Amino acid sequence: MEVNTRIEFITSGTLTSPRGFYAGATYAGIKKKTDGVLDLAILFSEVQCAATALFTNNRMKAAPVLLCQQRLKTGKAAAVVVNSGCANAFTGEAGLADAAEMADLAATGIGLSPEDVLVASTGVTGEPLPLKLIRAGIKQIALSADGGHDLAKAIMTTDTVPKEAAVSAGDNEFIIGGAAKGSGMIHPDLATLLCFLTTDAGVDIAFLIESLKKAADTSFNMVSIDGDTSPNDTVLIMANGLAGNEPIKAGSEQAEVFQQALDHLCSYLAKSIARDGEGATKLIEVTVSGAVSLDDARRAARTVVSSPLVKAAVHGNDPNWGRIIAAVGRSGVEAVESKIDLYLGDICPVKAGSPKPFDRKAAVEVLKKDAVSISVNLNLGTATATAWGCDLSEEYVTINSEYTT
Amino acid sequence: MEVNTRIEFITSGTLTSPRGFYAGATYAGIKKKTDGVLDLAILFSEVQCAATALFTNNRMKAAPVLLCQQRLKTGKAAAVVVNSGCANAFTGEAGLADAAEMADLAATGIGLSPEDVLVASTGVTGEPLPLKLIRAGIKQIALSADGGHDLAKAIMTTDTVPKEAAVSAGDNEFIIGGAAKGSGMIHPDLATLLCFLTTDAGVDIAFLIESLKKAADTSFNMVSIDGDTSPNDTVLIMANGLAGNEPIKAGSEQAEVFQQALDHLCSYLAKSIARDGEGATKLIEVTVSGAVSLDDARRAARTVVSSPLVKAAVHGNDPNWGRIIAAVGRSGVEAVESKIDLYLGDICPVKAGSPKPFDRKAAVEVLKKDAVSISVNLNLGTATATAWGCDLSEEYVTINSEYTT
Repeated sequence: MEVNTRIEFITSGTLTSPRGFYAGATYAGIKKKTDGVLDLAILFSEVQCAATALFTNNRMKAAPVLLCQQRLKTGKAAAVVVNSGCANAFTGEAGLADAAEMADLAATGIGLSPEDVLVASTGVTGEPLPLKLIRAGIKQIALSADGGHDLAKAIMTTDTVPKEAAVSAGDNEFIIGGAAKGSGMIHPDLATLLCFLTTDAGVDIAFLIESLKKAADTSFNMVSIDGDTSPNDTVLIMANGLAGNEPIKAGSEQAEVFQQALDHLCSYLAKSIARDGEGATKLIEVTVSGAVSLDDARRAARTVVSSPLVKAAVHGNDPNWGRIIAAVGRSGVEAVESKIDLYLGDICPVKAGSPKPFDRKAAVEVLKKDAVSISVNLNLGTATATAWGCDLSEEYVTINSEYTT
Repeated sequence: MEVNTRIEFITSGTLTSPRGFYAGATYAGIKKKTDGVLDLAILFSEVQCAATALFTNNRMKAAPVLLCQQRLKTGKAAAVVVNSGCANAFTGEAGLADAAEMADLAATGIGLSPEDVLVASTGVTGEPLPLKLIRAGIKQIALSADGGHDLAKAIMTTDTVPKEAAVSAGDNEFIIGGAAKGSGMIHPDLATLLCFLTTDAGVDIAFLIESLKKAADTSFNMVSIDGDTSPNDTVLIMANGLAGNEPIKAGSEQAEVFQQALDHLCSYLAKSIARDGEGATKLIEVTVSGAVSLDDARRAARTVVSSPLVKAAVHGNDPNWGRIIAAVGRSGVEAVESKIDLYLGDICPVKAGSPKPFDRKAAVEVLKKDAVSISVNLNLGTATATAWGCDLSEEYVTINSEYTT
C-alpha cells in the first residue's frame, strides 16, 4: 500500500516527544561514578497505555523480564522504572522479589498501582539488585516533558552514546519516540538489550503486538554485535492515545502509516546500536538479495554480519572477500557458488562466482568508511534482507576482559 | 565393552609412524619465506589403502574437497598432496582443473595412477593455485619414513606449532598416526581445517567410515575457535593393512580397540587445535553434564565454549560466570535456572541456580591456568559432553585484520 503521509524525524526527538509522556533520571550509585553519569530512570504516561513487549529468547530470563511478561498479559501499563549497572539476572527467587519491590517503589513515588509499572535492568549479571540505593534514588527522580534524554543516558552501560529519536507522521498527527541501549551481548533474536518506544497514537492492542513484531523483524532482529544474547533483552512499546485518533486497527490506511513510522524509528535505533557495538569503529551493512526466501536472505545477511573473520577483516580494511562467501556458505541457505555476485560498496571482486580483477586500493577506501556496505546477490530468487553489525576490534576484547573486575 | 588392550602414545609419533607410510615436504614459494618454512607435502602409502574422509558442511566447498569427494567414492587411496598458503577455494571451474592437475603432478612424481591421489589445500581463498610453483616444488619432495613431521609443518598457516601424534595398540599390534592444522575459521561441524590420519591396521571400509565419524563427533566436532567454518575442512583416514591383521569389522573386539585408539588420537589433536587457536593464550574445556540428551549436552558445551563474552572473560581472568549461564540459556537446550550448578575449576559460584559467595581470588587463579576448566551441571538428566576452545585475545583481532594484506 502506498502511504502519502509524511514521516519525518523530529529534531532532538526522544521518547518523551509524544504527548503525555514524562521521564526523569538520577544517579543512584549503582554504576561507577563519573561526570554526569545516571543509572536509574522512570518513564511515565499521564494516562494508561496499550502496551506490549518482545523479550529475550534466552531460556534464562532475568527477573525484570519475568515480571514484565506477567504484567503485560493485561496489554496495559503506565510507567517503567529502569536501572543500569546491575542486570538482576541469575538472581533466583530473591531477584524476582527485588524486581517487584523496585516496581512498588516507583508506583508509590508516582502514585500508580504497582500492576501498571514495568521494570527493566541492565548491567552485571549474578549480583543482587542494590535495593537500598534504588529506594533512595527513586525519591530523587523528577519527571519532566523532556526527561527522555536523561532516560536514554541512564540506560547506558558500555554504550558510548545515548540512542534516541522520534518520528512524526503527517502534521504531527501522531509521534513515536524511542530510546535504546545496546553495546554487547547483541545478537538476533532479539538484538538489543533495552529499547523503550512511546507513542501518542491510539493503537488497538492486537495491532500494536503485530506491528512491534514486524518492526523488530527488520531492525533489532537484523543486528548482531557478538553472537551472544542477553537474559534482559526487552523491546517495549506504550501507546497512550493522547493524539486523539480512532485506535489504529490492522488493515487500515493509518495502520500502514504507523507501521512505516515504527519501522523507520526501529531501523534508526537498531543501526545506532550496531554502530556503537563494543569496540566498534564502524557500521557494517550487509544486504543479501536474490535469495529463494526471505528467511534465507535474513539468515545469510545475519551470518555474514556476525562472522568474526569478516568483522576483523573490515576492521583492518582488508578486502578479504573469501570470508564473506565462506560465511554465506556456512549459513546453510540455498546458494550456488557459480551464481554469486559480491560487492564491497560499488567494487565487484566476484561476478557469477568467479574472482574478477578489482581495484584493491578503491576497495580498501570502501572499507575505511564509517559505514561499510557489503552486498551479495545469490541470483536464485527475489528475496532481499539487510543486516547490521560492526567491526571486531582489539578494543572489544579489552572491554570484555575487564568488565566485572 | 571393556577393552584390555593397552593404548599408548608413541614418543615423537606422527602420521608416518604406522608401517608403510612415507611423507616429505618442501618450500615451493606459496607462503611467505621464513626460516625453515614448508608449504607443499606428499603423504604416501606403499600399498593402496582403505580411505574415507569427512568434509566441511560449508555449502561452498573448495576445489580440493570436491575432487576428494569424487575420488573417495571408491573407498581407496594411496597418497595425498597438500599445500598451504593458497586454499584453492572460490576459484570456480579453473580451481577444479588446478586441483586435478596438482594430483596428476604428484601421481607422476610417485608413480601412481591419478585416481589414487587425493588433494588438500589451506590458506588464502579466492586466489588461483600457483601451479608453476607446485609443479617445481613437487619434484623436490623426497619421501621418507619419518617425513610425517615435515608434513605437519607444511600444512601450518597461522598455527604456531605443528600438531601431530601417534598411538599404538597392544604390543604394536597396530598404530594410528595423525597430523592436523587448525587455528582460525574453526567451528563445529567440522572443527578443523585439515587432519590426516594413517593406520597400518587392516580395516573394513564400512567400519572405517563409521569409526571416523564416531571419533570426530567427540573431538573435532567439539572444538570451536571462532564460529566460522572453512570451505576446505577435511579429516581423512587411510588404512593400509600392513599390520597384517584380519580387516577389522564392526562389532568385533578389535573394533572397540581401534575405536578407542582413534578417539584418543583425535581428542589429542582436537585439543591441540583448540589450544593453538588464533591468538589463544589458553585452552578452555567446557563440560556440560546432567543434560536430558547427548545432543543437548553437546550443544550447550559448544555454545559456552564459542561465546565471545565467555572467551573474553577467560582471557581477562574475570570470573564473570553470568556469561556462562547466559550462553547455556542461549543454546536453547532444556535447562531450568534453579537447578544449575556451575564450577570454575573446583570453585562453585552457583549452586541450584543461586549465586554463592565464592573465593574470587581462587577463581581468578583457576582462570589464569594454561587449561581452564568450566563445568555446568544442568541436573535434569544423565547426558554429558565436553567441548574445547580458547580464549579471545586482542591478538586474534590483529591476526585477522591483516591476513591477506
